[in-house]
Amino acid sequence: MADWTEADLATAAALRDRALKGTSAYEHVSSLVTEVGPRLAGSAGDEAAVRWAMNRLGKLGFTGVRTQDVLVPRWIRGSTEVTLLGPAGQPLVAATLGGSIGTPEDGIEAAVVEFATLDALSAAQAGDVKNKIVFINERMERTKDGSGYGKIVKNRVQGASVAANLGAVALVIRSVGTSDERFAHTGRMQYDVNAPRIPAFSLSNPDADTLSRQVKANKQVRLRLKSTARELPPAWSANVIGEIPGTDRANEIVLLGAHLDSWDLGQGALDDGAGVAIVVEAARLISRLDRKPSRTIRVVLFANEEFGLSGAKEYARQIGDEHNRHVLAMEADTGIGPVVRLDTQVAPESLGAIEKMRKAMEPLVIEGGSNTASGGADLGPLRSLGVPVLDPVLDASLYFDVHHTMNDTLAKVDAKVLDQSVAAYAVAAYLAATKQGNFGRLAPVPFNR
Amino acid sequence: MADWTEADLATAAALRDRALKGTSAYEHVSSLVTEVGPRLAGSAGDEAAVRWAMNRLGKLGFTGVRTQDVLVPRWIRGSTEVTLLGPAGQPLVAATLGGSIGTPEDGIEAAVVEFATLDALSAAQAGDVKNKIVFINERMERTKDGSGYGKIVKNRVQGASVAANLGAVALVIRSVGTSDERFAHTGRMQYDVNAPRIPAFSLSNPDADTLSRQVKANKQVRLRLKSTARELPPAWSANVIGEIPGTDRANEIVLLGAHLDSWDLGQGALDDGAGVAIVVEAARLISRLDRKPSRTIRVVLFANEEFGLSGAKEYARQIGDEHNRHVLAMEADTGIGPVVRLDTQVAPESLGAIEKMRKAMEPLVIEGGSNTASGGADLGPLRSLGVPVLDPVLDASLYFDVHHTMNDTLAKVDAKVLDQSVAAYAVAAYLAATKQGNFGRLAPVPFNR
Repeated sequence: MADWTEADLATAAALRDRALKGTSAYEHVSSLVTEVGPRLAGSAGDEAAVRWAMNRLGKLGFTGVRTQDVLVPRWIRGSTEVTLLGPAGQPLVAATLGGSIGTPEDGIEAAVVEFATLDALSAAQAGDVKNKIVFINERMERTKDGSGYGKIVKNRVQGASVAANLGAVALVIRSVGTSDERFAHTGRMQYDVNAPRIPAFSLSNPDADTLSRQVKANKQVRLRLKSTARELPPAWSANVIGEIPGTDRANEIVLLGAHLDSWDLGQGALDDGAGVAIVVEAARLISRLDRKPSRTIRVVLFANEEFGLSGAKEYARQIGDEHNRHVLAMEADTGIGPVVRLDTQVAPESLGAIEKMRKAMEPLVIEGGSNTASGGADLGPLRSLGVPVLDPVLDASLYFDVHHTMNDTLAKVDAKVLDQSVAAYAVAAYLAATKQGNFGRLAPVPFNR
Repeated sequence: MADWTEADLATAAALRDRALKGTSAYEHVSSLVTEVGPRLAGSAGDEAAVRWAMNRLGKLGFTGVRTQDVLVPRWIRGSTEVTLLGPAGQPLVAATLGGSIGTPEDGIEAAVVEFATLDALSAAQAGDVKNKIVFINERMERTKDGSGYGKIVKNRVQGASVAANLGAVALVIRSVGTSDERFAHTGRMQYDVNAPRIPAFSLSNPDADTLSRQVKANKQVRLRLKSTARELPPAWSANVIGEIPGTDRANEIVLLGAHLDSWDLGQGALDDGAGVAIVVEAARLISRLDRKPSRTIRVVLFANEEFGLSGAKEYARQIGDEHNRHVLAMEADTGIGPVVRLDTQVAPESLGAIEKMRKAMEPLVIEGGSNTASGGADLGPLRSLGVPVLDPVLDASLYFDVHHTMNDTLAKVDAKVLDQSVAAYAVAAYLAATKQGNFGRLAPVPFNR
């Protein structure tokens, strides 16, 4: 039995070429960042984003447009001040890390001790760290697949508790980002239950350079840190869901996910306005086809990816046994693209079909990939239930220049590149929703994130 | 009579090649931005910069190292908040313009009216502007010689008073800068004596885009503006002067200028740490030659260029008739370079010598230029006294991406490029200080800036 009819493949090719002629994806991002802007989980911007998404999916003709309530943590950044003390007192560009406690009102003033890596800090003697501000000065490597991020993001996530266990009074890290523009990179940090809680900050790359030059030149470099960050009680947000209904297999679902929340510093144009635009536009283009797919395409705009995947977890919890009818899931959450590779985690017997799918994208210049993809953060809970995932890998070479910074704006969105990504996602979703037979199931595993 | 002996020209060539092998210019900038950082006229950083310069010129072996007291205006930026009002209230990245008054404590909240240019604003009816916030949305053009800046900087300098005369409550301009990174561009604005004083702000280019998209989409866009900017009584700063003494014509001076102050937002690495490094290093390299120049090379690091040229005016005031012994003046104040052209304002009969000078720089790829150069802001008062100027034009293609922004850091300084600029300045200064005969005199004109 062939995976697809000639007519399916011809429709996919026409869909791809239609997308390359120009889509509305840029307009979706522009509207989201202009009319809403930053939308940290639980904030007024987050609420506005849910309204925006309901409104947009409705206007675009999606079916079954609905929200799914999600309880999200509510963290407030407040103000941040990091000052390099010295004859003139030089302010450094810094961000309080997401989830960090604030400082006492008068701030924290202490000597700085620098470490090259988290491992070097872990190996330190408490005597070298006690009552000091720990500075982890590790630079993120620029790579096409963004793997430099995974290598050192532990500095941000775990650094504070490792430092606190050695008696440090605060943590400062070099931003987990690749840009030499003067933007500090935020993102979630976490406290170990058993470690004292100390405030945690990142410095922009040029400011980490300044601090490190001072540390190298002097024996005693001091910083003053001030932050009014705090946590409020959890708040309600929502996943926003809309569908392009299938024809004869409408109860089977191909899921297209992205996240609606963003960090507070930027406009969330790349993270994840671009992803929202890619999946919404891919589905919309499919809805305009004469030849409808037999399966339902479900777009899920997840709440609160950034601060603990609340929306993804709630979605997986609420679907119950319906996960068996999720044939394939895809997510877009690494910027505008272009799509450069097709990774998967599907049953091995489906890899031939995946290769045909890739061939249907051929003019887009997309390589074949591995079958060990995670599929992306918001697909974790579904994957752990056994849902196969397809990961159209977005080129992340420039993504980590702006990701999680104030500089994540529409100016970084190239409409042509975004169209290529829409083309790839649309072809993949259409072919997944028309394929004879499914992509198998994965072995269920516990979800522990 | 030849302008130079073969030995003079051979020494200049050796000096040039020595500089291209690597200079200490980068280290001078690094030291200034690391040990001092921002140094707005009259601030603690400005004081630290004067100490830094005295110390550095002394250590490098300059002669007659001294300060010249200069009274400077003292403006305090305080805090700036610009918020695009709407369902979620989106913060915009903005800077209070230098010299602006602050807002009332509760801020200013008003509707926005957008104009494409200052001319369009000038032509507006008061009824369209009264009680509104005027937004001038003009984008600076990127050019090699930085001429895009001169074309629209009037938006910043004059915009507030033009708007105020039509009844506006505040001015917001698109930054006079070329970068799409999210940095707002500060710089000096001025109030007309007869206009009401209203606060004035700039928005980063991406934020001006956001505001403009909102204006285009809605009839009534409102902003809230808050600034605690204020003026304090004038403070003392200083020009810092050091010399490489000449041999047989030591009372004749070749002046190399740059300015020691910077805006407060960035580190002043390009504006004008780079200029300080270029002129200091060029003079230092000349001081290391076996064959000393016959004229004295005087390095002047001017106080307060940014906020009204106080140092340049005071220098010209104090030299009295000594200006007749200033044979040629050069300034570096457009970033790191490279030097791409040799402009001048000298007596026409000296243009042959200037062309020989340019040929002595030949491997540096420097074009011949015009003889109508201003020479740079800090040379204005000297030029008006009749002192000829040489302007080694620094490539400004990227300069206005960071100039006057928070992003003016050492990360933007390329040591190799800086060395090329040092080579050009050193050759020019050496040949000016060894030339038989002078460069004539200019017709004195009133200095009115």
